[in-house]
Amino acid sequence: MNTLPIGVFDSGVGGLTVYHALKRVLPQENFLYLGDTARVPYGTKTPDTIIQYALQAVGLLVDAGVKFLVIACNTATGPALPILQKTYPNLPIIGVIEPGARAALAVSKTKQIAVLATEATVSAHSYLQAVHQLDSQAKVVEKAASLLVSLAEEGLLSGEIPEKIVHYYLDALLTEPQLDTLILGCTHFPALAEVIHHVVGDRVHIVDSSKVVSEAVRAYFDTTPALLHPAQKEGMSEFWVTDGVGRFRVVAERFLGLPIAAEQVKWVDLHQFLAK
Amino acid sequence: MNTLPIGVFDSGVGGLTVYHALKRVLPQENFLYLGDTARVPYGTKTPDTIIQYALQAVGLLVDAGVKFLVIACNTATGPALPILQKTYPNLPIIGVIEPGARAALAVSKTKQIAVLATEATVSAHSYLQAVHQLDSQAKVVEKAASLLVSLAEEGLLSGEIPEKIVHYYLDALLTEPQLDTLILGCTHFPALAEVIHHVVGDRVHIVDSSKVVSEAVRAYFDTTPALLHPAQKEGMSEFWVTDGVGRFRVVAERFLGLPIAAEQVKWVDLHQFLAK
Repeated sequence: MNTLPIGVFDSGVGGLTVYHALKRVLPQENFLYLGDTARVPYGTKTPDTIIQYALQAVGLLVDAGVKFLVIACNTATGPALPILQKTYPNLPIIGVIEPGARAALAVSKTKQIAVLATEATVSAHSYLQAVHQLDSQAKVVEKAASLLVSLAEEGLLSGEIPEKIVHYYLDALLTEPQLDTLILGCTHFPALAEVIHHVVGDRVHIVDSSKVVSEAVRAYFDTTPALLHPAQKEGMSEFWVTDGVGRFRVVAERFLGLPIAAEQVKWVDLHQFLAK
Repeated sequence: MNTLPIGVFDSGVGGLTVYHALKRVLPQENFLYLGDTARVPYGTKTPDTIIQYALQAVGLLVDAGVKFLVIACNTATGPALPILQKTYPNLPIIGVIEPGARAALAVSKTKQIAVLATEATVSAHSYLQAVHQLDSQAKVVEKAASLLVSLAEEGLLSGEIPEKIVHYYLDALLTEPQLDTLILGCTHFPALAEVIHHVVGDRVHIVDSSKVVSEAVRAYFDTTPALLHPAQKEGMSEFWVTDGVGRFRVVAERFLGLPIAAEQVKWVDLHQFLAK
């Protein structure tokens, strides 16, 4: 039994989709979410910068004390997960990419899989590599879809504009008749799942990495019950951000419909933490 | 006569529209452009963070030696310009907002002005204040248009998608029959000037802050000829970025059609600079 919180790290607000799913499968747990909003987005940055930022931000969570860490950001998971695991060998750390790749292969019959992600995730071929480690014969097409991040943050989740933008990214991929699975490889994208489903139709399974990672965490806790929080009641959540608390709450509510109380959100001075 | 470069500071690539316009009016000058791509965008961040980032990044340019500084970023100009001017009292520093406000008032007959800008520029009411300092009777409506930044960076500058997004932001403002001037209050937006013009029609003057600031700089140099570079031939330009050089060149070419040679772009280690 362990009353420490589960740490959830993201570059900004996108990881809230993962937090949301985790909260559903592990309601009695406490959560400490960190959004590095002073440096968001990571998706247009280089691997070196992403690694540096992730190490700094995760340092804050480790300092605070967490029993388990979820990297709720595809862009950070790609380059930073192995380095974080090496840096903190005694802390169980899970990213969003391997569970997403595994779920896609489980559901795909044709083993032809498309991935929508950020520029950085596509450039690093994070999903291609993760899928090929499980099945070297699978065919993976990756597509950067930066505008979907802005749409999600803006709360423009349905109607003509998101529909046309999803077509813009997916139409060429959908000409491949064997394609039967699409991974939402950025934690912002589940907010647009409905319009994406409308564009791809029933032929294509949509894999929501935020959902599958929560199931993977739940499976880990089932196997390691010593980690579970003993309480029977619902746990507490705290949200730390490295920039303004106001915008975090607005965007969280806008794209998740998830109201977050002002007293749950705290600004942390990353600059001062790094100077220590 | 002064052979030092003119410094041009932006959060990322948007300021290249200002650089482009400056280069046209002062072709014999050398330019040192700094894009803080490791922390771009500034447009969704708080004034405190924007000020901190601008002071750090401008420190790099001042250290390198510049004779004049252009803050080629609306978001940074709002909160940081007065603080930068106080920090470097002997360096002439100009931002994009005051020249934009002045140009809008000069061209507007009705004194009803709209501004498209980032979230941060709108929240700070930077243009509203700048216009009212010149004409307290003018009517100013400000509209945050984050998706236009992504469109410009993606190079999606014409066709149905940008047109619909511009309508999405402007249709409500255009119902005001007296509106006759629109300020493009983010240095990304001139890349979309054509589609914006198509939406607003001939009734509305479009003020491109990147163009008007270059004219203001030119006027300053005309008044202070000691600052001018003596050469008769075209000057040199160097571009410093705090993150990847590759994406900077790709996006610059994508949205400006401005090819930048690899040897002109240099990565600067902001982290190490700050640790000094």
